[in-house]
Amino acid sequence: MSFLKKIFVKSRSQEDGFFFNEIEIILGFKPINLDCYRKAFTHRSLNKLDKNGKPISYERLEFLGDAMLSSVIAAHLFNKVPSGDEGYLTKMRSKIVSREHLNELGRDLNLIRFVESKVPTQHFGENIHGNIFEALVGAIYLDQGYPQCEKFIQKRVIEPYVDIARLEGKVISYKSLLIEWCQKEKRTFHYDVFEDNAITGERLFGVKLSIDEKVIAKARATSKKKAEEKASQRAYFAFQEKINTK
Amino acid sequence: MSFLKKIFVKSRSQEDGFFFNEIEIILGFKPINLDCYRKAFTHRSLNKLDKNGKPISYERLEFLGDAMLSSVIAAHLFNKVPSGDEGYLTKMRSKIVSREHLNELGRDLNLIRFVESKVPTQHFGENIHGNIFEALVGAIYLDQGYPQCEKFIQKRVIEPYVDIARLEGKVISYKSLLIEWCQKEKRTFHYDVFEDNAITGERLFGVKLSIDEKVIAKARATSKKKAEEKASQRAYFAFQEKINTK
Repeated sequence: MSFLKKIFVKSRSQEDGFFFNEIEIILGFKPINLDCYRKAFTHRSLNKLDKNGKPISYERLEFLGDAMLSSVIAAHLFNKVPSGDEGYLTKMRSKIVSREHLNELGRDLNLIRFVESKVPTQHFGENIHGNIFEALVGAIYLDQGYPQCEKFIQKRVIEPYVDIARLEGKVISYKSLLIEWCQKEKRTFHYDVFEDNAITGERLFGVKLSIDEKVIAKARATSKKKAEEKASQRAYFAFQEKINTK
Repeated sequence: MSFLKKIFVKSRSQEDGFFFNEIEIILGFKPINLDCYRKAFTHRSLNKLDKNGKPISYERLEFLGDAMLSSVIAAHLFNKVPSGDEGYLTKMRSKIVSREHLNELGRDLNLIRFVESKVPTQHFGENIHGNIFEALVGAIYLDQGYPQCEKFIQKRVIEPYVDIARLEGKVISYKSLLIEWCQKEKRTFHYDVFEDNAITGERLFGVKLSIDEKVIAKARATSKKKAEEKASQRAYFAFQEKINTK
C-alpha cells in the first residue's frame, strides 16, 4: 500500500469514526450500515453515483422516511386517542408531520452539520432541516427495519414533541403553566441562555430552565422566546404527574 | 346457565366459527383477536358502542390501514425501483393506493359480505369496497403487528396487483400479450365465465383462463372484459419467467 493510500485510508476511517460517533448519539443505537446514513446527508448537487451508476442523494430516503413517520404517528394516535374519529386522527397527524414541525425536529438535532453539498448549506431554504430529518428516518428503516425505526420516532418525535392537548389548542403556553405552578408551589425558577449561535448563518438560541437552582430542561430554537417555551414544555412533561396529582 | 343463554352462546359461537374460518382463508393465518376483524366490518349506522362507551365502526381502522398500506408500498417501491426518484416513487404509490384500485382489491375478496350495517349494503357507494379493505389491513396491524401486516400486503396487494410496467403504462393489455405468447408457443387457450352474479345489486363476472385445457388463472370483475384482463395478468405473472427466458 502506498504512502498516500495509507494517509487516505486513515483519514477516511477517522472521518467515519467521527460520523459514526455523532450519529450513534442521535440514534441511541449503533448503526450497522453507515452508508445508509451517509446517503441521508448527501445533496444531489454533489452528483455522486453508486457502484451501479445510480445517483446518490437523500431524496429517495426522504420519501421512505416520510412514509415511516406517517405510519408510526398514525398507530400512535390510533392507540392514544380512542375517541378520535378518522377526521380527527388525520388532522392531528398532519399537524405532527407538518413541514414546520419536521424542520424544527431537524434543526433541534442540528442535522445540517452532516450535509455534504456543493451548494453552501446556508443557501438552502428552511425545508432542508425537515427533509434530512425524514431522510434520516428512512435510513434507519433501511439499516434496522421497522421496529427500530418506530422506537426512534417514539424517542425523538413522539415523546418530546407530540402533545395532544397542545395540538388540540387546549394549552396555549407551557411557560405560563409552569410559572403558575412554581408560584403556587413556592419554587424559584429562571431561564438562562447557554448558547447564542450565529455561525451557520441563522441565529440559534439554547435556553435552560432551572427550578430551585437545578437544571430541569434545555431547548434550542430560533428565538429566545421559542426556546423558553420549548424548555417549559419539556419541564412540564417531566413534572406532569406531580402537577396532575397535586 | 339458562336454556335461552345456551342457545345464544351456541349460535354466537357458530357465527364466530364461520367468520373465523372465512377470515382465516382471506388472511392466510389464524387471527388472534377476532374483535379487531369484526370492527373492520362494522358500519357506523349500527351505532354500536364498546365497553367504554366509544362508538365502534370501521372508520378508525380505515385510517390505520391506509397508513400501513402507504408505508409498506413505499418500502416495496423504494427497493424495487432503485433508479426511481422521489417524484416517481410518489406517483407510483398514488396509483397503487388509488381509490379505484383499493375498491378493486376489496371487491375481489368480496369483503362486503361481512359488513354489518343498518343500511342495506347495496345502498353504499363504490368506495365501501376500498374502505373495508383498508380497515381489514388496520385490523391485521392491531391484531398481529407490522411484520404480519406487511406479509399480508405483500401477498394480497403487491404480488397479484403491483405491476410496475403496467403502472408506468408500458404494458397496455395482458390479454394481448398472453394470446400472442400462446400463438407463438402453439398452445390452446380459452376464457370461460364461471360466475355471473347479479344478486348483490351489481353485476360481477368470474372468468377462468385455461391454457392447454388446464385452468391457469381465475379473476372476478365488474365486466367480462375486465375479468379476462385480470385473469390474463395473473397468468402472465405465473408464466413470467417462462416467457422471459424463451
